[in-house]
Amino acid sequence: MKNEIYIVGMGPGREEMMTGEAVYALEQADVIVGYTTYLKLLGQRFQGKELLSTPMRQEKERCRLCFEEAEKGKKAALVCSGDAGIYGLASLMYEIGREYPETELFVIAGITAASSGAAVLGAPLNHDFCVVSLSDLLTPWEKIEKRLEAAAAGDFVIVLYNPSSHKRKDYLMRACDILLRRIEEERICGYVENIGREGTRANICTLKQLKEREVNMFTTVFIGSSGSENINGKFVTRRGYKIEKNTDICGNN
Amino acid sequence: MKNEIYIVGMGPGREEMMTGEAVYALEQADVIVGYTTYLKLLGQRFQGKELLSTPMRQEKERCRLCFEEAEKGKKAALVCSGDAGIYGLASLMYEIGREYPETELFVIAGITAASSGAAVLGAPLNHDFCVVSLSDLLTPWEKIEKRLEAAAAGDFVIVLYNPSSHKRKDYLMRACDILLRRIEEERICGYVENIGREGTRANICTLKQLKEREVNMFTTVFIGSSGSENINGKFVTRRGYKIEKNTDICGNN
Ligand SMILES: C[S@@+](CC[C@H](N)C(=O)[O-])C[C@H]1O[C@@H](n2cnc3c(N)ncnc32)[C@H](O)[C@@H]1O
Ligand SMILES: C[S@@+](CC[C@H](N)C(=O)[O-])C[C@H]1O[C@@H](n2cnc3c(N)ncnc32)[C@H](O)[C@@H]1O
Repeated sequence: MKNEIYIVGMGPGREEMMTGEAVYALEQADVIVGYTTYLKLLGQRFQGKELLSTPMRQEKERCRLCFEEAEKGKKAALVCSGDAGIYGLASLMYEIGREYPETELFVIAGITAASSGAAVLGAPLNHDFCVVSLSDLLTPWEKIEKRLEAAAAGDFVIVLYNPSSHKRKDYLMRACDILLRRIEEERICGYVENIGREGTRANICTLKQLKEREVNMFTTVFIGSSGSENINGKFVTRRGYKIEKNTDICGNN
Repeated sequence: MKNEIYIVGMGPGREEMMTGEAVYALEQADVIVGYTTYLKLLGQRFQGKELLSTPMRQEKERCRLCFEEAEKGKKAALVCSGDAGIYGLASLMYEIGREYPETELFVIAGITAASSGAAVLGAPLNHDFCVVSLSDLLTPWEKIEKRLEAAAAGDFVIVLYNPSSHKRKDYLMRACDILLRRIEEERICGYVENIGREGTRANICTLKQLKEREVNMFTTVFIGSSGSENINGKFVTRRGYKIEKNTDICGNN
């Protein structure tokens, strides 16, 4: 029988925002590997398990640790915040997994910050959207710029992950400058800090205001499309562009 | 006290793919409103509740029904598949909510088909991506075309919702034609039918092959970026573009 590793998205924070499947995978695991912050977010009942971590940024080591534990015959789970397949460790696990052909990987989806942040703001993602990370640790800034330009050209709602860090405090400002070439200053924007964790804070503002805001790395940022508006303090993107007829609407909701 | 309505994303199908929060909101509800198919997907223990539906496509009526039930003083929940804020009814609820100022709306995030489908395929969304609906019921086709062009120009991974319906069998082919103007024929693509439901079926193919495939409306389609590849039958998008140094990786996973 093959070894198995479950790559589990734990959602934005609180255990109630994990899926039943994800909770079950962690309950079944002998060993849970993850970044310390996320291991601490896990409920009390998981704290009795073998919990393994590597320091922040040592992500390859964290992945290898997982494979090594699985090779010992243990049921191993790797936890990531949000969805493990969205700026998480899932793809690195598949890459490193080439060296461990006896181990099978299973990804358990989690609520990503785009979804959980949207729920706090209202319904900003109710039409086509793009997700872009402002982190240039693994992506050249020119590539990020090109993506922002394309996202604005396509009139997408835009979700920004990793909008800031200590070393790159001005990245959100730079991103807004690029977007302002095509998008009007008054366009509705929003951002949510600490989604699903203590100290959740949501803000709605204009693109011009967003440019001047300082956000931290635990924040997800939303820029509206031409179909977005502020309805009683909520950020809402209309489902369409045609005048809606009385009953005839989009597919199977 | 204000009336409250919970707008609940139930994820792709099985109850295990709902979050604890979503299950709790439905347990607390006096009445659950939703499209019949989704009401049937709810577990046995919800079948004793008052369950209300309107025929397919009568989505405004379904939303109004919810507000009317809440005005009677009942705790009402509206269920949508996936995430209620992603091509779901959340934004329509806010729009109609203008007429019901005494009712407060709460969105409970759910696993959207992009996340759950990605988990089946491997890790296709592990870098920047766009989500586009091919439904032209509420969006002019020219707008959809423009978005597809922008998504390809930005080298995003692209997720297509509503890739097909009875009346528009050739839409996926038309979308592929647009993408093929910029993306090579051999680019990795994938699609998943009936995610989280009976008869889940995943396929990996090239963009050229995708163009010839017939998919149904219960399918979500993924088109890779230049950073995507096939690793042992899994669709994986690398986390970055720079040569990775030994330890120094992206942010807080
Ligand atoms: C390396 S990415 C990990 C994303 C995660 N895998 C997900 O799917 O949500 C880190 C970024 O995700 C966003 N993020 C993750 N969790 C968050 C939370 N609880 N509140 C706000 N933003 C969050 C922030 O933009 C943060 O900079
Ligand atoms: C009107 S949209 C609703 C999307 C939903 N609110 C979500 O967040 O997943 C319907 C489209 O979502 C996708 N979809 C929803 N549930 C699915 C499932 N279980 N399997 C495959 N695709 C699904 C398909 O592309 C389908 O045509």
